[in-house]
Amino acid sequence: MLYLIGLGLSHETDITVRGLETVKKCERVYLEAYTSILMAADLESLEKFYGKEVILADRELVESGADQILKDADKVDVAFLVVGDVFGATTHTDLVIRANELNIPFESIHNASVMNAVGACGLQLYQFGQTVSLVFFTETWKPDSFYLKIMENRKIGLHTLLLLDIKVKEQSIENMARGRLIYEPPRYMDIQTAAQQLLEIEELRGEKAYTPETPCVAISRLGSPTQKFKAATLKELAEYDAGEPLHSLVMLGRQVHDLELEYLYQFVDDKEKFMAFVEADQEHFKPPPYVPPEEDLSD
Amino acid sequence: MLYLIGLGLSHETDITVRGLETVKKCERVYLEAYTSILMAADLESLEKFYGKEVILADRELVESGADQILKDADKVDVAFLVVGDVFGATTHTDLVIRANELNIPFESIHNASVMNAVGACGLQLYQFGQTVSLVFFTETWKPDSFYLKIMENRKIGLHTLLLLDIKVKEQSIENMARGRLIYEPPRYMDIQTAAQQLLEIEELRGEKAYTPETPCVAISRLGSPTQKFKAATLKELAEYDAGEPLHSLVMLGRQVHDLELEYLYQFVDDKEKFMAFVEADQEHFKPPPYVPPEEDLSD
Repeated sequence: MLYLIGLGLSHETDITVRGLETVKKCERVYLEAYTSILMAADLESLEKFYGKEVILADRELVESGADQILKDADKVDVAFLVVGDVFGATTHTDLVIRANELNIPFESIHNASVMNAVGACGLQLYQFGQTVSLVFFTETWKPDSFYLKIMENRKIGLHTLLLLDIKVKEQSIENMARGRLIYEPPRYMDIQTAAQQLLEIEELRGEKAYTPETPCVAISRLGSPTQKFKAATLKELAEYDAGEPLHSLVMLGRQVHDLELEYLYQFVDDKEKFMAFVEADQEHFKPPPYVPPEEDLSD
Repeated sequence: MLYLIGLGLSHETDITVRGLETVKKCERVYLEAYTSILMAADLESLEKFYGKEVILADRELVESGADQILKDADKVDVAFLVVGDVFGATTHTDLVIRANELNIPFESIHNASVMNAVGACGLQLYQFGQTVSLVFFTETWKPDSFYLKIMENRKIGLHTLLLLDIKVKEQSIENMARGRLIYEPPRYMDIQTAAQQLLEIEELRGEKAYTPETPCVAISRLGSPTQKFKAATLKELAEYDAGEPLHSLVMLGRQVHDLELEYLYQFVDDKEKFMAFVEADQEHFKPPPYVPPEEDLSD
């Protein structure tokens, strides 16, 4: 049996009781370690907590070595551990499809991920539109597909969760070209960089998907003991130090409720000022006022 | 300290290890028991698993009795257990706001909820738009605010998660009018009812937010041992028996990827037929074809 097991967001102990029981009975345990990281645990502490060896599965192993992971999984139990929830990345559905082809049964044991835990900032999950990803810009590569998606969400009044780039075990272009297996230190995009990149693209495109005054919520270390929220405008967040990774960002939509705002006020410097920014932002994408149909007086 | 602890979706053992450790040290433990239910556990089995009393918190206690729940929580530890994740319902943010007013510190311990576990159907979470709720229609009350929201999602190509009504500890209108504290048996909306209500509203409004041929995924007992998925058209699902509760429904958006479809094929009766429905459905809300700007020949 193949078990896909979500690890949650931060601690070794964020695994579910059922997840832990399952890990303990598995013959081999893989940890997917390149789409996210646990903030308060590492390979060593996990191995200690589980009382068994954990095999680090990097992108190469997961994407090309699926058969190695699935070896004998029709006869023995194999666990594939994923930070957050199980189906956060397309590579994990690939693994299940491959297991199906090999007639290997599988079960998933779910856990929290940023996609639902983001509700902790006080914005209601059902008011979020599509999620977008921000990748590190380079001098020559500034992918901005997020821009249209944010625009689409905000046109219908929805909040947007922005996931920030994580670079783990990446090679420099030079090392890659020379075939040298030397990896760069991990990089985690911070709130400042994200806000700056967003502003850079808005400046280039100027279609006002958002403005420097658009209210956002900076989320740092969600689900960890040092979790923090900061509600401010995009321009303010471009200078905000959110501390240690991981960071994510939420951009507000026009439909924000009073109850959501009341919760956010915990995280603002100046309530009146923030409220004024929210009200000003609500003018963007405002639907035209309702005009009642003319009364039919013909009868 | 107030602890808000997510219980996950199904088993007693779906609580996280950290959540369980916390429950064990709390002086009072409340279980919010009206916005959702655990599918493979009940009050009794939870009490046995935790080794302590669990107080059932119904809507009345949570919405009017917050101060009772929070009593002495500045001095002792109190746990408030929520099925799924912590911030699934606005009533839970209310409780935290009240705790803040009383200077009671709080911590949340997250878990899986339908909002992220729905990824198990193979559709990618970042491709979902706003979530909508379907409530039981009566003869005279057929709220259809979901219709516009589904339309908005589908116009921009996104999938829609539909949460189906749960009625726990509800009074009949007659009993309510007479002040009799007699409660109806719990009711959980099933896939058939949901699909029929959706079709009824489409027939009434006729704006083609979706059609009887729109492809959907029926999800039954997500995260439980008998979890099941069925991909079919809305019309087919109006006659599909999804078995025991809980059920949810996903309506596909135009942007569905090949990788997502490949995963869904596990859950269809006839792959070719399903693919034809997907292709037909993609014609709705299709953006106009790209017309390149006329070349400027003036230089």
